[in-house]
Amino acid sequence: MSRRKQTEDERYMRQALTQAKKALVIGEVPIGCVIVCGGKVVGRGYNRRNTDRSTLAHAEITAIRKASKSTGDWRLEDCTLYVTLEPCPMCAGAIVQARIPRVVFGARNPKAGCAGSVLNLFDESGFNHQVDSESGVLEDECAELLKGFFAALRVRNREEKLQRKTSDSMHSQRPD
Amino acid sequence: MSRRKQTEDERYMRQALTQAKKALVIGEVPIGCVIVCGGKVVGRGYNRRNTDRSTLAHAEITAIRKASKSTGDWRLEDCTLYVTLEPCPMCAGAIVQARIPRVVFGARNPKAGCAGSVLNLFDESGFNHQVDSESGVLEDECAELLKGFFAALRVRNREEKLQRKTSDSMHSQRPD
Repeated sequence: MSRRKQTEDERYMRQALTQAKKALVIGEVPIGCVIVCGGKVVGRGYNRRNTDRSTLAHAEITAIRKASKSTGDWRLEDCTLYVTLEPCPMCAGAIVQARIPRVVFGARNPKAGCAGSVLNLFDESGFNHQVDSESGVLEDECAELLKGFFAALRVRNREEKLQRKTSDSMHSQRPD
Repeated sequence: MSRRKQTEDERYMRQALTQAKKALVIGEVPIGCVIVCGGKVVGRGYNRRNTDRSTLAHAEITAIRKASKSTGDWRLEDCTLYVTLEPCPMCAGAIVQARIPRVVFGARNPKAGCAGSVLNLFDESGFNHQVDSESGVLEDECAELLKGFFAALRVRNREEKLQRKTSDSMHSQRPD
């Protein structure tokens, strides 16, 4: 890959990271996405699954919805999608359906990733569209953001468990 | 499968067919879907991809969005999804992500079906959720609806081509 292309990919991945940080602020798993067409961002999104109580509130789905609205077409054939985490089956499938030709992602998703980790929906000859994908762009920053979120979540869960235990113990010691 | 279960599946598939006919009325590929929870339809959808200019306007995605809104949860763990055509990768992925335990579909989709035709996303041990699926419920009716649509589309395309040819020929015969 040329140095210029790499710099461009990193620039847009920073914008995807900015989206991911919006998810972090509202307590969601920090995943962000931008879609670029002709040097212009045409769709942005960040994970809001719990907030919106919808499995469709993944970063990529929101960005695809906005990009289609912005371009007036369900086919996003001249676009590149940047996302901080390897897409899940739903999002990888939506990318194939929207005929996006290129996807750039940061961190690997070993539990649900469909750009090579669990499956590769982007290189399935049975479909009528294939997708070029590039992994590992700003991988450390994307992965650190996720690691930090899950580490904080574990601490919070432990504290809540301890509080519940203390509260239960106080109730059980109370005379009837 | 028990006769009672089969009757129930056919009953809900008829409701999915009613949705598919709504797509037909607006000139879209006739695909329809309903999601059922505790004997109640909690989400309905039909294909509106060209009308809404969005790849996310597939029948299943709309039904999942509505079911999550209706139940107030992104997890649709007690639901059955009925759809007239085998789901594409995006919709099969969304079903896995929404943790829907059972899918019933009518016709096979040899070009993009992800419940066994091209791939089987419902039985992928790498994901943390698997889906039971039942195929061929009211298959003939579901397939006939699609065949009729595509036959009519071919006739319309041929007529339009002929009209363009006639019009071009008349223009070329006109003296300058």
